[in-house]
Amino acid sequence: MTDSPATPDTPPPVGPNAPSVNALSERLVARLVDDAPRFGAAVSHTAHGTVLVDAGAQAPGSVAAGVLIARICMGGLGHVTVRESLDAQPLWPSMIEVRTSWPVLACLGSQYAGWSLSATREQTGGKKFFSLGSGPARALAVKEPLYAELGYRDRHARGALVLEVERLPPQVVIDKVLHDCGLTPAQLTLIVTPTHSVAGTVQVVARVVEVALHKTHVLGVPLDEVVEAGGSAPLPPPAPDGLQAMGRTNDAILYGGRVHLTVKHDAVAKRLAAELPASTSRDYGRPFADIFTAFNHDFYQIDPALFAPAEVWVSSLESGATWHGGRVDAAVLHGQWSAAS
Amino acid sequence: MTDSPATPDTPPPVGPNAPSVNALSERLVARLVDDAPRFGAAVSHTAHGTVLVDAGAQAPGSVAAGVLIARICMGGLGHVTVRESLDAQPLWPSMIEVRTSWPVLACLGSQYAGWSLSATREQTGGKKFFSLGSGPARALAVKEPLYAELGYRDRHARGALVLEVERLPPQVVIDKVLHDCGLTPAQLTLIVTPTHSVAGTVQVVARVVEVALHKTHVLGVPLDEVVEAGGSAPLPPPAPDGLQAMGRTNDAILYGGRVHLTVKHDAVAKRLAAELPASTSRDYGRPFADIFTAFNHDFYQIDPALFAPAEVWVSSLESGATWHGGRVDAAVLHGQWSAAS
Amino acid sequence: MTDSPATPDTPPPVGPNAPSVNALSERLVARLVDDAPRFGAAVSHTAHGTVLVDAGAQAPGSVAAGVLIARICMGGLGHVTVRESLDAQPLWPSMIEVRTSWPVLACLGSQYAGWSLSATREQTGGKKFFSLGSGPARALAVKEPLYAELGYRDRHARGALVLEVERLPPQVVIDKVLHDCGLTPAQLTLIVTPTHSVAGTVQVVARVVEVALHKTHVLGVPLDEVVEAGGSAPLPPPAPDGLQAMGRTNDAILYGGRVHLTVKHDAVAKRLAAELPASTSRDYGRPFADIFTAFNHDFYQIDPALFAPAEVWVSSLESGATWHGGRVDAAVLHGQWSAAS
Repeated sequence: MTDSPATPDTPPPVGPNAPSVNALSERLVARLVDDAPRFGAAVSHTAHGTVLVDAGAQAPGSVAAGVLIARICMGGLGHVTVRESLDAQPLWPSMIEVRTSWPVLACLGSQYAGWSLSATREQTGGKKFFSLGSGPARALAVKEPLYAELGYRDRHARGALVLEVERLPPQVVIDKVLHDCGLTPAQLTLIVTPTHSVAGTVQVVARVVEVALHKTHVLGVPLDEVVEAGGSAPLPPPAPDGLQAMGRTNDAILYGGRVHLTVKHDAVAKRLAAELPASTSRDYGRPFADIFTAFNHDFYQIDPALFAPAEVWVSSLESGATWHGGRVDAAVLHGQWSAAS
Repeated sequence: MTDSPATPDTPPPVGPNAPSVNALSERLVARLVDDAPRFGAAVSHTAHGTVLVDAGAQAPGSVAAGVLIARICMGGLGHVTVRESLDAQPLWPSMIEVRTSWPVLACLGSQYAGWSLSATREQTGGKKFFSLGSGPARALAVKEPLYAELGYRDRHARGALVLEVERLPPQVVIDKVLHDCGLTPAQLTLIVTPTHSVAGTVQVVARVVEVALHKTHVLGVPLDEVVEAGGSAPLPPPAPDGLQAMGRTNDAILYGGRVHLTVKHDAVAKRLAAELPASTSRDYGRPFADIFTAFNHDFYQIDPALFAPAEVWVSSLESGATWHGGRVDAAVLHGQWSAAS
Repeated sequence: MTDSPATPDTPPPVGPNAPSVNALSERLVARLVDDAPRFGAAVSHTAHGTVLVDAGAQAPGSVAAGVLIARICMGGLGHVTVRESLDAQPLWPSMIEVRTSWPVLACLGSQYAGWSLSATREQTGGKKFFSLGSGPARALAVKEPLYAELGYRDRHARGALVLEVERLPPQVVIDKVLHDCGLTPAQLTLIVTPTHSVAGTVQVVARVVEVALHKTHVLGVPLDEVVEAGGSAPLPPPAPDGLQAMGRTNDAILYGGRVHLTVKHDAVAKRLAAELPASTSRDYGRPFADIFTAFNHDFYQIDPALFAPAEVWVSSLESGATWHGGRVDAAVLHGQWSAAS
C-alpha cells in the first residue's frame, strides 16, 4: 500500500509495512454516508459522482457525526470517544478521549490539516474559497513535504478528505483534489465541518494528540521516537461567532488538553515533558481569541510553542520512566465557557 | 419510516427524517436472543411465535444483558456503557454512562416507560398483571399523546418492548401489544427485566438522561430545544426487596445522576440549569424509599420535580455558554448502599 | 460446548450452559492474525500450519495488540479498554479497565496463566523453554485440577493460547499443546507476549480482575458466589529489565488496582472486602521487585495474600449492601514509575 523512500541512515518513522489509512477508513466513510440522516448530515453528489457530506453547514450535524469524522481523519487508526465525566467535581462534564497505537501515521500522516486548498473568484465564478484539508486523502496526494519525512504514501482506490469550512467546495477545488489523489470523481468523498458546528468542534478538539505530535515535530524531535499516544480534552459547545469558535477549540487543547506519549528514549521523554506543554509559550495564559485579536488575527505572529496540550506525560521505553510537565488549567476554560448565571 | 403531523408554526421536535428506532435496534434484539445464554437470559416463544426474553425473572440476567437492553430501549440511538471509576476517591466504583445525539427520539420516543399494559384476573385466568412498557415498539403503537407532540410514528416490520415486571406477560397483554403495533406474533420480542434484577437495575439507572428529558417536558420547555445529551449515574447492585430496589435506582439518578444537555437558546439553558436538578424539589434530601413510604406508596403525591438528575450542565448553541445547576450528593447514596462493615 | 461433572450438593460455578471461550474468541484471534501489521505483530506458521503470533519478541507489538490479546485471554467474555484519565489530578494518565458478566469463566476458566509448558535442552535441541500458558485453549486441554472445580470443559475446533515468554515456542511444546487440546496443527494459534513488551504489559495489567478471582479462590470462597466483576489499574510503560518489568505489572495491580465484585451473599461480601486487598499481606508496602529480590527470587516464599488488587468493593445480592476494603496507593507507583525530572 505504501512507498518508503528510506535513506540508509534515518529510517522513516512510518515505514513500508504501514497500513493504508484510506482503506482502513473506507468502512467509516461508508457508515457516515449510508446513515447520514442518523448523523444529522446531508449527502449530495456532483455531476460526476463525487460524494459531498455536509456535517454542519446547512445540515445540523451532531456529536456522533463529529466522532465518526474524527475517526475518519485518523485514517481508522485511532479510537475517539465522547465521555461523560464521572468525578465528583469534574473539570468539564463532557470530554473527548483519543488513543492510537499509530500516533505518527494517524495524527500527522492523516489527521493533520496540512493541505491548503483555495480557489479565486475567477475560478469559482462566485466567492473565493479557502480551506485546509485533513484526513486520509492527504496521503494519496502527498503534496506536503511532510510525507517525504514520514516515508509514507498511501495507494488506495478510494479516499476521503475533511474540510473545516463553511460551505461545500467549488468544482475547481474538487478537480484539484481528484487530480492530486489520482482518483476518479466517484472514488472521492469530501466532508465539510464548519468550525462553529457541533461536529466541527468535536473533530477539532479530537486533535489533542495530533497537536502534541505536530509540536514534537516543530521541536525537531525525530518522529520515529513516538510509538504510542493517548489524550483527552474537554468538549465545549461550539460558539456561534467564528473567532470565538476557533478560540474555544484551541482553549480546549491549550488549557484543558492532556496527552500521554510513549517514546523510545529517556532524553526525548525528559525534553518533551519540559518543552511540549502550552505553558512553555510566551503567549500562554489568556484565552486564544484574545491572543489572536492582540496579534491582529495574524496566526504567524503567535508563538508556535503555544499550540500544544496543557499537560503532558511522556513515558520512555529505554528506562520505563515517565516524565510529567504542564498542568490542565480549568480557570481559563470556565472563565470563557461558563455562564455567569 | 415516520409520519410527521407538523403544524406550520411549531415544527415537531423529531421530524420526518428521523430514523426508525425499531429498525436500528433490531440487530441488538437479535444479539440478545441469539446469544441469550451468554447474557444469562432465557428465551421462549408463545404458541404463535412471539419471542419472550427473561432477563432476570427466572433467569439470572447480567450487567451485560442490562446494557444491551438499555441500548434496545434507546432504539439503537444511544451509547450505554458500564464504566469503572478511575479516580483516587470515586463516588462509586461502577458507573453507567449514556450518550445520544438523538435525545428526544431515543429517550422520549423510545426509552421512556410510558405505555401502561394491564390485565385483570378474568383476562389472565390467574393473577392480574400490570407493567409499564418501554422501548421502540411504543413508537409503532403510538398509544400515548406524547407521539403527536413528537411528530413521530415508526413503521417497521419488527418491534421490541421492554417490561419492568416480575414475570412473563399473559397472552392477553401480548395480543394487545401485537394489535396496537400492527405486528404479527413472530414479529414481536418482549423483554422482561424485574426491578430487583441485575439487568433491571442497569436498564433503569441508564434512564438518567431520559429522566432529564422527561422533566424538561414537564417544565413545558419545547422539546425541539434539546439537540445533544449525555449523562452518568452510579450503578448499585439490585436490592432484593421491591421497594428498596425501586428506591435505589431512583436514588442513583436523584442523588448521583449528572446530565449534560445542549439546547438551542440561552434562556432555555439558564432555566433548565436552575429548575431541572432534583434538589429543586420540596421532597429532595431523603432516600426515595423513605419518601415513597411517607406518601403511603402513592406516586402521585410525590412532587414531580423530584424526578430529575442531581446535577445538570446545560450548554446553549445561541451563545456557546454553559450553565450549571445542582450537585451530585454522595452522602445519601453511601448512607443507603454501603454496609456498616 | 461444555461438559459439566456436577455433583448433587455443590453445583459447579460455571455450569452446563456456559458459552465456548474458544468459539467466542475465534473472531478476535482472526482479527489479530489478519491485521497483524496494524497491531505491530508478526505472523508465521510452523511447517504443519500452526499459527504463531509474535506480539513483542522480535516484532514491536503495541497497546492495541495488548488490548486485543487481553480480550482473547478472557475468551471473548470481557471488555478490556485503555482509558485516558479525565480527572484534574489523575492517579496515572492511562488506565486499563476490565469488565465481565462471566468473572469465573472469563478470568479463571480462560485468562488465568495456569498451564505450565516446558521443554528441556534435549527436547528443544537448543535452549530450554518455560512458559505459563493462558487463554481459552486451556479449557480445551483441561490439564489443571481447577477445571474439575469449575465444571467446565470447552469443545471447539479452534483454540488460542497466550505465552508470556521472550521467544516463539519450540515444536515439542507446540506438539504437547496440540495433543492435550485435541487440535490439528492448523487449528491452533499461539500468541507470544514478553513481559517487557508493550503488549505484554497491557495483557498482564488487564489481569486485575483475574487476580482478585484467584485470591478469592485461594481464600476458599466458593467460586459460584461471584456473578459480576469490573476493575481498573494504571498502565505503566514496560520496563526493559525483566525483573523490573515483572515488578511494575505487579505493582500496577497491588498498589493501583481497584476491583468491584458482585457476590451472592453478605457474609462473603464482608469477608472479601476485609481479606481480599493486597494490604492484608505481611509483604505489602514495598515495590514488588524489592520483595521478590528480598526473597531471593523465589515466588513461593512470597505471601500468597499479596497477589490481589489494592482496593476492593464487594456488593451482595442478598441484601444489596456494598462493602469496601483497601485503598489505591499512588505513592508506591509514582516512586517506581516517575522520573525525578
